[in-house]
Amino acid sequence: MATRRQLAVEDVLRVNGSRRFAAALASASPFASLADALLAARRIWLNEVDVNGWLEAFAAHPPIGATSPSVSKWSKEEQSAALATATDSAAQELAEWNARYREKFGFVFMICASGRTAPEVLAELKRRYENRPIVELEAAAQEELKITELRLAKLFSSEAVVPPASV
Amino acid sequence: MATRRQLAVEDVLRVNGSRRFAAALASASPFASLADALLAARRIWLNEVDVNGWLEAFAAHPPIGATSPSVSKWSKEEQSAALATATDSAAQELAEWNARYREKFGFVFMICASGRTAPEVLAELKRRYENRPIVELEAAAQEELKITELRLAKLFSSEAVVPPASV
Repeated sequence: MATRRQLAVEDVLRVNGSRRFAAALASASPFASLADALLAARRIWLNEVDVNGWLEAFAAHPPIGATSPSVSKWSKEEQSAALATATDSAAQELAEWNARYREKFGFVFMICASGRTAPEVLAELKRRYENRPIVELEAAAQEELKITELRLAKLFSSEAVVPPASV
Repeated sequence: MATRRQLAVEDVLRVNGSRRFAAALASASPFASLADALLAARRIWLNEVDVNGWLEAFAAHPPIGATSPSVSKWSKEEQSAALATATDSAAQELAEWNARYREKFGFVFMICASGRTAPEVLAELKRRYENRPIVELEAAAQEELKITELRLAKLFSSEAVVPPASV
């Protein structure tokens, strides 16, 4: 359901860890609908957030398969299929390839993992490892955008329905 | 002329400020010819240096038009046409647009300035300012590569000719 309230920067930072993104989206709110919010998010993310902002957002994510109490509720939900389907040896392989990926590309392997199993994630990681760094930067940004859109949808659906004010 | 000597990391860092690039090129040396060195430089820069390494290399350059005692001899040579053709107001405009560019993209405006006048550089800066950050990242990397190649050529031409050992 739509929310007519102004988004605070702190709200948006839970959706996407780039401060530039969060400030811009908060500033563009309130939105008449989720669709409007998603359009604004896409525009801002792809055109206004600089490379440092992209890296900042990636850094807000734990590696796929890494679990700890500090990992956000949303990260856990997004990774649930992968975590549920990871055998001990798959988890080990994921950790090794994550480390190799980070060493080559300089940021965590970004994948919108919702609904994807551990074997699928590992296959993607190995495939994408062969890419040039600039290609993977853009791939990571596209995955971050998917995650951002999913989280915005959750944010909007958790809001109480506010009856439109009379105009 | 070709040099048969091993390149030290310190030599290469003067050519390109990325430590990953410098280590890889030094490790690939000695080269039988400048052409071989240029091929290796291109391969390493475009395929092996991560985005952080790219940003590190860009950060080693002063903004176009900025002069100070600490600016390297090569930077001064590369910028000589631009500096010679800059009126006071052009220099002011360059400084303003450089600042605007850095604010938007997060790194200095990269251009292989050799032989280019201040009006040309300013026109390029205004044109490229409109690009998306990922597009400018790749543009900057291509300019850095041109500078790297020019500087490698200077490095090789400054070496004494070493007669080939008998084989």
